[in-house]
Amino acid sequence: MAEYQQTMRAVWWEDEDEGRRPAAVCMIDQSQLPQQVVHLRLTHEREVAEAIKMLRVRGAPLIGITAAYGIVLALYRLAREVGPALSLEQAREHVRNVSEMLAGSRPTAVNLSWAIERMQTRAQQELAGDTSVALLTSALLVEARAIDDEDRVACSNMGIYGAELIADGDALLTHCNTGWLATAGLGTALAPIYVAHQAGKRLHLFVDETRPILQGARLTAWELQRQGVPFTLITDNMAGHFMRHGGIKAVFVGADRIAANGDVANKIGTYSVAVLAQAHQIPFYVVAPCSTIDLHLASGELIPIEQRDPAEVTTLRGTSIAPAGVQVANPAFDVTPHTYITAIITENGVARPPYDVTLRRVCTLRNSERVC
Amino acid sequence: MAEYQQTMRAVWWEDEDEGRRPAAVCMIDQSQLPQQVVHLRLTHEREVAEAIKMLRVRGAPLIGITAAYGIVLALYRLAREVGPALSLEQAREHVRNVSEMLAGSRPTAVNLSWAIERMQTRAQQELAGDTSVALLTSALLVEARAIDDEDRVACSNMGIYGAELIADGDALLTHCNTGWLATAGLGTALAPIYVAHQAGKRLHLFVDETRPILQGARLTAWELQRQGVPFTLITDNMAGHFMRHGGIKAVFVGADRIAANGDVANKIGTYSVAVLAQAHQIPFYVVAPCSTIDLHLASGELIPIEQRDPAEVTTLRGTSIAPAGVQVANPAFDVTPHTYITAIITENGVARPPYDVTLRRVCTLRNSERVC
Repeated sequence: MAEYQQTMRAVWWEDEDEGRRPAAVCMIDQSQLPQQVVHLRLTHEREVAEAIKMLRVRGAPLIGITAAYGIVLALYRLAREVGPALSLEQAREHVRNVSEMLAGSRPTAVNLSWAIERMQTRAQQELAGDTSVALLTSALLVEARAIDDEDRVACSNMGIYGAELIADGDALLTHCNTGWLATAGLGTALAPIYVAHQAGKRLHLFVDETRPILQGARLTAWELQRQGVPFTLITDNMAGHFMRHGGIKAVFVGADRIAANGDVANKIGTYSVAVLAQAHQIPFYVVAPCSTIDLHLASGELIPIEQRDPAEVTTLRGTSIAPAGVQVANPAFDVTPHTYITAIITENGVARPPYDVTLRRVCTLRNSERVC
Repeated sequence: MAEYQQTMRAVWWEDEDEGRRPAAVCMIDQSQLPQQVVHLRLTHEREVAEAIKMLRVRGAPLIGITAAYGIVLALYRLAREVGPALSLEQAREHVRNVSEMLAGSRPTAVNLSWAIERMQTRAQQELAGDTSVALLTSALLVEARAIDDEDRVACSNMGIYGAELIADGDALLTHCNTGWLATAGLGTALAPIYVAHQAGKRLHLFVDETRPILQGARLTAWELQRQGVPFTLITDNMAGHFMRHGGIKAVFVGADRIAANGDVANKIGTYSVAVLAQAHQIPFYVVAPCSTIDLHLASGELIPIEQRDPAEVTTLRGTSIAPAGVQVANPAFDVTPHTYITAIITENGVARPPYDVTLRRVCTLRNSERVC
């Protein structure tokens, strides 16, 4: 199958321009979509951490990639400020500090710490040999680009594996945003939909708006509209109604962290959708690269859940939608127990229960081998 | 048990003031809550229909009461404009036309047509005897006030019956707004909570924000805050998460129409909550006066579901939250099959399955008799 045409990127690296313009992590500011497409050009690692925290960039795979570039950026920035006097020891220390800062920007998605650990491992390898600040920086840029490139390939493979589960004429449902705004490539849960659509399968997607941040209404709707995939935007609380009456044949969602037993942390509301899907005997698919699978975590109960600002619930773009002073809960994620999950689609193939066996296998496979 | 203190009204009738000020249907404009408490004084029946349609007044029992007053208002208005020349025949015709217009303002809640039919029956009784326009108007005002008063008493009784199902220390969940902003009295589904709270039971309510119109965040939160009932506001998609982790012991919701078999049409999202409650083995209670029960309708599949403006989903107080031109579904209600409903609490007692038997019984009982 031909690779799906990707025309836009959500995050990209820009090299420094012969001293005239510093190196930068560039991104579409997703907090301003769909009203405005604003490109950010970040030249300080603190701006990168802020962008992750404020959801200017989001999506588990993408924040990993962003953090990887953020570490490289931090070295460029320091070298620019300190000049030739910058020692390898200072650089090593800086990589460690920046890694810690970036890892703390959001706690739930494991891709973030996965990418940062990979960058640190690469730094240690480089520092173990005969190197320089310039060589270290260069090695880390190569590593960040590899993480980026591998995610793009992973998306493509997840799309191909997942599309096999979609039949011509299917209605499907998705939650949050899991397309090219959430990854380096086609997406996670949207990748199968894009691939199936490009292959000529007629399909119709129900898109949960995904309160409180409205990633569905703002981001997924915007992506799908640009790609010409037919869809209907619904409020989250309509999911049950349309499972009963809308002919929905499958649910596709992404993941922020998957435990060794197959429990999945994902955007708040995912668990409700999973319970509803099971009650309607609709297959519930999780699509995520292996970097999302945390084999060190026995079950989902151990996944830290980020609690976000109550104002995300009580206000909307500055407009208050609730009385002042109300008590609000705002967990950014919930955990869906593995018993609700029909299959987990990775770049290495489709894992089905028992997940404690199949996830371990899928994580050690290469793309050419498949597991079912 | 002492009647719960009610300090505010959502809709009320104002007599004409010796010709200086015309009679009026008055209300709090709920579309502007909680930011502003705006009182409307409507003197034309078309304003009443518009207020119902635009959700300035909402809640199944309350729109029935509002429409009843609207019919009286229409006679006052016509008499004022036509003067002494107004014939009984013109008045009869006017009552018929206004009833039709008001009945068309919202299609799902049966209380609306129930109240209008009751007003028409009263008009026919009056017109069958020796009467005048003034006597007809007066008789209809008495009838509207009776509907209003009976609803207040019904709320109080529903509160007392429902409160028996709430234990000290319970966490509960509710959807939409079903308090004094939705009725002439304490409310339907909120009435048991108010009564239990006043009786000194410690309880904590999870309040779904209830997209798209946010009746939970805007209205229920505002009511509860004023009454001092402890609660946590959540987005609709958090319901499953807090059923799993928040210790929720029961769900209380209202109804817009209940079919003879116990199927319940209520605010969109109710069905999802009911499925989630069943999956977590949490009792799911519907609280509604007998005027909400439509014994002529065999099942919920026959209830007409109002489809509202897509802009309610894609914009929020004028701010766009989705790309322009997206396809949107906006059913105002969904239907919860009776198999998900633990009990239906009415002013005449608590009906439990089999509903095709118990609902019929409860509708023919008076307050002093109870059914279980």
